[in-house]
Amino acid sequence: MSTKINPDLQKERDQCTFDVTELTNLIDGGVEKTEERKKREEMALKENIHNDDVPSVYLSHKEKYELAVKKACLLFKMIRKLQEEENAGMENYMAVLGGNLGSAILSDGCPLTLHYVMFIPTVMGQGTVEQQAYWIGRAFNLDIIGTYAQTELGHGTFIRGLETTATYDPSTKEFVLHSPTLTSYKWWPGGLAHTANYCIVMAQLYTKGKCHGIHPFIVQLRDEENHMPLPGIKVGEIGAKLGMNGTNNGFLGFDKVRIPRDYMLMKNSKVLEDGTYVNSPSSKLTYGTMMFVRVMLVNDMCNYMAKAVTIATRYSAVRRQSQPKPNEPEPQILDYVTQQHKLLIGIASVYAFRTSANWLWLMYNNVTAELEAGDMERLPELHALSCCLKAASTADAAACVERCRLACGGHGYMLSSNLPLTYGLVTAACTYEGENTVMLLQTARFLVKAWQQAVSGNTLTPTVSYLGDLRNGRRSPPWDNTIEGIIAGFQRVAAGKIGQCVAQIEKRQKSGMSYEDAWNMTSVQLTSASEAHCRAILLATYFQETEQRAGGVSPALRRALRQLVDLYVVYWALQTLGDLLRFTSISERDIEQLQNWYEDLLVQLRPNAVGLVDAFDIRDEILNSTLGAYDGRAYERLMEEAMKSPLNAEPVNKSFHSYLKPLMQGKL
Amino acid sequence: MSTKINPDLQKERDQCTFDVTELTNLIDGGVEKTEERKKREEMALKENIHNDDVPSVYLSHKEKYELAVKKACLLFKMIRKLQEEENAGMENYMAVLGGNLGSAILSDGCPLTLHYVMFIPTVMGQGTVEQQAYWIGRAFNLDIIGTYAQTELGHGTFIRGLETTATYDPSTKEFVLHSPTLTSYKWWPGGLAHTANYCIVMAQLYTKGKCHGIHPFIVQLRDEENHMPLPGIKVGEIGAKLGMNGTNNGFLGFDKVRIPRDYMLMKNSKVLEDGTYVNSPSSKLTYGTMMFVRVMLVNDMCNYMAKAVTIATRYSAVRRQSQPKPNEPEPQILDYVTQQHKLLIGIASVYAFRTSANWLWLMYNNVTAELEAGDMERLPELHALSCCLKAASTADAAACVERCRLACGGHGYMLSSNLPLTYGLVTAACTYEGENTVMLLQTARFLVKAWQQAVSGNTLTPTVSYLGDLRNGRRSPPWDNTIEGIIAGFQRVAAGKIGQCVAQIEKRQKSGMSYEDAWNMTSVQLTSASEAHCRAILLATYFQETEQRAGGVSPALRRALRQLVDLYVVYWALQTLGDLLRFTSISERDIEQLQNWYEDLLVQLRPNAVGLVDAFDIRDEILNSTLGAYDGRAYERLMEEAMKSPLNAEPVNKSFHSYLKPLMQGKL
Repeated sequence: MSTKINPDLQKERDQCTFDVTELTNLIDGGVEKTEERKKREEMALKENIHNDDVPSVYLSHKEKYELAVKKACLLFKMIRKLQEEENAGMENYMAVLGGNLGSAILSDGCPLTLHYVMFIPTVMGQGTVEQQAYWIGRAFNLDIIGTYAQTELGHGTFIRGLETTATYDPSTKEFVLHSPTLTSYKWWPGGLAHTANYCIVMAQLYTKGKCHGIHPFIVQLRDEENHMPLPGIKVGEIGAKLGMNGTNNGFLGFDKVRIPRDYMLMKNSKVLEDGTYVNSPSSKLTYGTMMFVRVMLVNDMCNYMAKAVTIATRYSAVRRQSQPKPNEPEPQILDYVTQQHKLLIGIASVYAFRTSANWLWLMYNNVTAELEAGDMERLPELHALSCCLKAASTADAAACVERCRLACGGHGYMLSSNLPLTYGLVTAACTYEGENTVMLLQTARFLVKAWQQAVSGNTLTPTVSYLGDLRNGRRSPPWDNTIEGIIAGFQRVAAGKIGQCVAQIEKRQKSGMSYEDAWNMTSVQLTSASEAHCRAILLATYFQETEQRAGGVSPALRRALRQLVDLYVVYWALQTLGDLLRFTSISERDIEQLQNWYEDLLVQLRPNAVGLVDAFDIRDEILNSTLGAYDGRAYERLMEEAMKSPLNAEPVNKSFHSYLKPLMQGKL
Repeated sequence: MSTKINPDLQKERDQCTFDVTELTNLIDGGVEKTEERKKREEMALKENIHNDDVPSVYLSHKEKYELAVKKACLLFKMIRKLQEEENAGMENYMAVLGGNLGSAILSDGCPLTLHYVMFIPTVMGQGTVEQQAYWIGRAFNLDIIGTYAQTELGHGTFIRGLETTATYDPSTKEFVLHSPTLTSYKWWPGGLAHTANYCIVMAQLYTKGKCHGIHPFIVQLRDEENHMPLPGIKVGEIGAKLGMNGTNNGFLGFDKVRIPRDYMLMKNSKVLEDGTYVNSPSSKLTYGTMMFVRVMLVNDMCNYMAKAVTIATRYSAVRRQSQPKPNEPEPQILDYVTQQHKLLIGIASVYAFRTSANWLWLMYNNVTAELEAGDMERLPELHALSCCLKAASTADAAACVERCRLACGGHGYMLSSNLPLTYGLVTAACTYEGENTVMLLQTARFLVKAWQQAVSGNTLTPTVSYLGDLRNGRRSPPWDNTIEGIIAGFQRVAAGKIGQCVAQIEKRQKSGMSYEDAWNMTSVQLTSASEAHCRAILLATYFQETEQRAGGVSPALRRALRQLVDLYVVYWALQTLGDLLRFTSISERDIEQLQNWYEDLLVQLRPNAVGLVDAFDIRDEILNSTLGAYDGRAYERLMEEAMKSPLNAEPVNKSFHSYLKPLMQGKL
């Protein structure tokens, strides 16, 4: 295979106005961090676990699972070795499993992930010191493989509705796990089907005839020697899915399965030997994990978007189409403004969400520190933020990946582009860890409360302080057609929408509706208000954080980064003109200026498009795309990948003899 | 398996306010048409070709192809038998292959479809009488199996850019087919890889040293006896795709392959024995096929949307979640207004697009009749309409299917829901038969011309006559907050946007840009103008056609249908408030009324949601969904389908012994 770079792509790189490595270092967080990342990638990829003889897309569902187990085991072996050599902590597991690297090695999900991501953390967070001592050692050593079972066939986001029961029997000092209905079967946990032999099960705790709500229990599922399901355990896989077919999602039912009393994780709540229930001292602490996962998710979404825009942008530099001017060659499709419109906002979104994820991460750490000092004041704010950013980042990422895929025309539909698989992973996140509409309504609850506090004259926490300034239709300042002005406009939109929702709910209550019904009737508007709040936060954070670190950046790069911020803000202004027209004094003239500004920004950013995605520095092995590789040999790679199809190993498929020929000869 | 109906679903059916059968008949076009359809379905399904031992989602890529060939051959055998018995025409082939029925039997594409859909029609449309006599007989009899190869690795929508050459050699009276580059390889044609043995190839015709553009040639690809590729033919499959993995999409390259002169289809243009090229008398006629396919596509999109909303609506009646009011049971998720917001617009969209498709079909027939009488006046209008309706219907259908899938939460991600597969088929249509952005820009060209004609005082064809009334910022009438008023508002929006684009292009030209560059710079706005025009047409057509046939409908049904129209129009008004605020005099008060109207419509339509999808009358075998079956046994079916996974046939997978156990014992 030649390593020549496609000349169109080389031309793009030659014309880039800034130093790509400088930007890569900025994204990674410094030169050393870039080197660390590269070393980690090199280390993980040199083992060659990521390479398949036959691409897994050609395998049967069962073979896909078997390949995923093989690769996951080799990967875990590698991590364990590394762990022993370097005596490193959890971070190393996470660094290799998570982010781009994990999905490069196990492109459609890993059946062992939940062992590290949920099983061990839950034991650490909710087990007593003795329980930790016993289970964590075995788990770290991989003597056992665990997973985490919460969602049931009939219940997901609404956790209180879970039906699985754990009833304490003081006569034997055991809990009896039971699945009273079909809908109570656990459904979805990764690795549960045929991989894990232990599991943390979330179940309704009954003792002394009383239900105390959902608690975690460790249950052995399979024999450690022969892996057979233990008596009373009904376990299997849930079947083929849109994506993540390597994760081995399973179902699990219990027929009165008994476990020892101390298999209940009792750091917070306890059941004593006689069956007495002792309540948790601080149930708020379990919120932490959920928020942590959502913050991480925003970062994951940036990784997936970065992949998608890298693929689509490089391909758009290589692909030529049509002939708008007679006697001139076909332009690169990147020269079409409609194509720039699809791609550049995607590139900007990666930077915008990455910035917001970093900012949210700092806030998460601050709030966690305050929590440990007993201060819970900012917890609701963080919760509200993590909910709406989870919803916005997953929804925007899904839209971005699909836009990129469609921008590659027919070839984006090829699995070898890696865009469809990426979409499968991203769109799943719109549902898991809290369904997006539910998430937006959680944020809306917080916003409505904040509004009411503002009305009562209370001061508000930082991210909603703008509500205090703007509530009650206080006269708006005149529209200011600058980035700062647009951001202020978005805050007015959010405040205006929240205010309208509150008014609407009150009106409906006055007409005799219950609060719950009035809330439901207003819920479409409430999700919209929540989204407006989230947009205001995203724009402000992206702008402010970029300004703040502009000082340490070379002028050429600073210019490009600022153009991206402008593009992002102006794009969203144009997308939400209806809101701006309703809640600010923006004029038709302003709008026309914004439209021209946007088109000018596309022109200015066009020459740096490839540089901006090159700076994500995603190795070809990780990108794993025929269309997006660094060398731009898209057509050659499409053909090379096609030749790997087992169907192409034979000139004539056997179905010709058994069906086609008989049909053609009238003998079928 | 019990046939008991889920009581929640039964309750929905009991409360429906209209006669579902009346609506089914209305959709089908009369009682007899419903019966015909049911008979056809019964006939096609009783052969049991649609039933698989192992669901095809569990098979390997190669096995999926082999199963698809088997099913396609059995299906074609059935159709041929039917054909002989009833002496029926093409319609019967199309009726069984197309629409819902085809996708029920071959759920992920059929490797033989292009034989009937492209090969035979192209021979009929572009072959001489002699060529038709020779080829159509063989094709109808299935002595040969053909496909149609146009798109190449390097060129799709821009047909003039195709690179495959057909050079006439007068010395042997043959054409020499050749693929001069890698990018000239044919890429994408269905059935091309391992199924068809003949192919219509679109190639650049060279004779006497001159290129005459793209022409159709029949090429034999494989030996009729042993199916081996003929010398000089490089053929194979392009690899795994997001969907349609049963279609056997192929690539095809020629190394100086010779075919007889009369294998060029010569109804329109000819090459004489000495190599003289004789031009086509009416090249416009070939437009017809393309438009026909796009009109059909709008109907297909309705079928897919109907499936998706049927699945999601029935599941939303069965699924219960959360507990907004203490001490009350969990509500059906259909009771959440946010859920109604996602589903009801989908239901309305099916009716809206179906209505527009029927209307477009009538127009197509009229224009075709006029064409045959030599009148080409309305051809550009029809072309423009078919382009933007193709784009809008495929984009809206893709959004609708994904919204439905996500509205089913995690279970929508299961392939057994049939929503992911449906999305795969729908999203492909956003690209094939003309990429959507290109389509919108084609319509925009027509609209800009129409605008200029209006400026010159010419009368306009019917679908753009509103431009004449509204151009040049003529004073708008005051906003009228009714359905008719909203539709008029949409026309003002479209006119306003087209006018702005024209002004923008002229301004840019005056500043020194070429027309082509000015067009490109304005193209984001042009696509938006084109979409606005399309929305105006859709709303007006849906409203007017529904009003027109309201007379023949019972009052209860009429009310429901009118509510759907209202919902559709008000929904789109709320979606495009920015445009309405810019180009009409709509006020904040009007907007608040629209929002309330919309929420009221959701309440009014809620009790009929299940009835409205039941009326699509999609048999369970065709719907093929665990979540959407008529009896509402969603959870039972999910479990039954899961048990069909080959992974669940063994309690312990072999990978435990080869990888998991060694890993756990530290022996890997």
